[in-house]
Amino acid sequence: MNLKDKNENYTSVRIVMVNTTEPGNIGAAARAMKNMNLSKLYLVNPKGYPSAAATARASGADDVLSNAVVCDSLQEALNGTGLVIGASARQRSVKWRQMDVVGACIEIQKAYSTNSLESAVVFGTEKFGLTNKELDLCHILMTIPGNPDYFSLNVASAIQVFSYQNLVYNTDTEFDNEKSKVSSFGELESFYEHLAQVLEHIDYFEENKPKELLMRRLRRFFNRAEPEKEEIAILRGILKDIKPFEKQ
Amino acid sequence: MNLKDKNENYTSVRIVMVNTTEPGNIGAAARAMKNMNLSKLYLVNPKGYPSAAATARASGADDVLSNAVVCDSLQEALNGTGLVIGASARQRSVKWRQMDVVGACIEIQKAYSTNSLESAVVFGTEKFGLTNKELDLCHILMTIPGNPDYFSLNVASAIQVFSYQNLVYNTDTEFDNEKSKVSSFGELESFYEHLAQVLEHIDYFEENKPKELLMRRLRRFFNRAEPEKEEIAILRGILKDIKPFEKQ
Repeated sequence: MNLKDKNENYTSVRIVMVNTTEPGNIGAAARAMKNMNLSKLYLVNPKGYPSAAATARASGADDVLSNAVVCDSLQEALNGTGLVIGASARQRSVKWRQMDVVGACIEIQKAYSTNSLESAVVFGTEKFGLTNKELDLCHILMTIPGNPDYFSLNVASAIQVFSYQNLVYNTDTEFDNEKSKVSSFGELESFYEHLAQVLEHIDYFEENKPKELLMRRLRRFFNRAEPEKEEIAILRGILKDIKPFEKQ
Repeated sequence: MNLKDKNENYTSVRIVMVNTTEPGNIGAAARAMKNMNLSKLYLVNPKGYPSAAATARASGADDVLSNAVVCDSLQEALNGTGLVIGASARQRSVKWRQMDVVGACIEIQKAYSTNSLESAVVFGTEKFGLTNKELDLCHILMTIPGNPDYFSLNVASAIQVFSYQNLVYNTDTEFDNEKSKVSSFGELESFYEHLAQVLEHIDYFEENKPKELLMRRLRRFFNRAEPEKEEIAILRGILKDIKPFEKQ
């Protein structure tokens, strides 16, 4: 698998956690971010932080944690950003401009590519999320879709979901399933010929197992598997070793 | 926000956790699943389970946990499924059929809609993921894209990412930004006329602040905000109360 970065906007994204009560969640958020190429973490009045619980859950993402900026207010954490996105798990009755996670990623990329703006994505407390006053500082309300009958997304999980979606939005994934490895038409035809010869040789075809019909079914089966060159070589190796069965 | 379920395939998806060493991760996985409408959890030889740590992290998703099926082998956990997808965070050199998370969700829906097949998505141990022997039982290798220099996705986070992507793939999200609330052309024109009158009234326009130019800039500004009916009503209320400023 190769990831091709299309936009290189990762350094333009700031994750802001407001009044987080459980330091373990800060560590888990750092880990979630680093896994998805994000590194800028801002903490507004974190409870019991720094703490061993945060470091333990960060699991190798301690650089994100040690570079985290601790602030006294959300305003302070938003200084220098151009676009502010508030994250919410539940629907809000008051009318902010709402969008889903992909929509938010599109806005972040737009802000970066047209005006080199830094964006903040803001996450509230574990119990209640962002307050309406905090949301007033946001330009967009990002809603993470989910089960309408149970929405209790952990804050680090919400950051994981956003960070994943942001990476996917900004990269092209290529898998090493190179076309060249797939067998050519000629290689396949030559294999089917070989297969038919061997099946004749072992007297497989009979009146109620007619060659034409069975070869068609076998072609359908093998074609569906899209055999690679190496696989065809293995199958032909097997065919070579097949001896006619002694009829009793 | 309204979610419209397109496919209703949630009950066709089984999450399988193999040899999980940390029971807290099982609870976090149950919570991640329930948030995204999934409920079928299978546990192969979970260490130290059941445990208080699992229940604590499940946080309201205890029904998923109490319905979880504990198995002695991966084979047992896969009984009854038609499509088996192994999850991996890192690239594998051996050649399984690889795809990303969206690709896996497409295959799950295909299996469900064409043959009513149940699918399993299998997650390995925290430290090493799935072994090659376990992957041999899988039809597809699902790779979660991420930072090439640091890939250490927590197993519950990986389940969160898959479950989120599966929900997004299977739902249409609609926001309550109803078109009818947006002001009509006529309402906006009438507002601009009112605005121009008030600005004349307070002697705002001058030779170096020409009416035509400034009204064009104001129109551009207000149009970009796509004002809703209610917002135009608020703005007109303000205009009504504006008194000419006594020139000194």
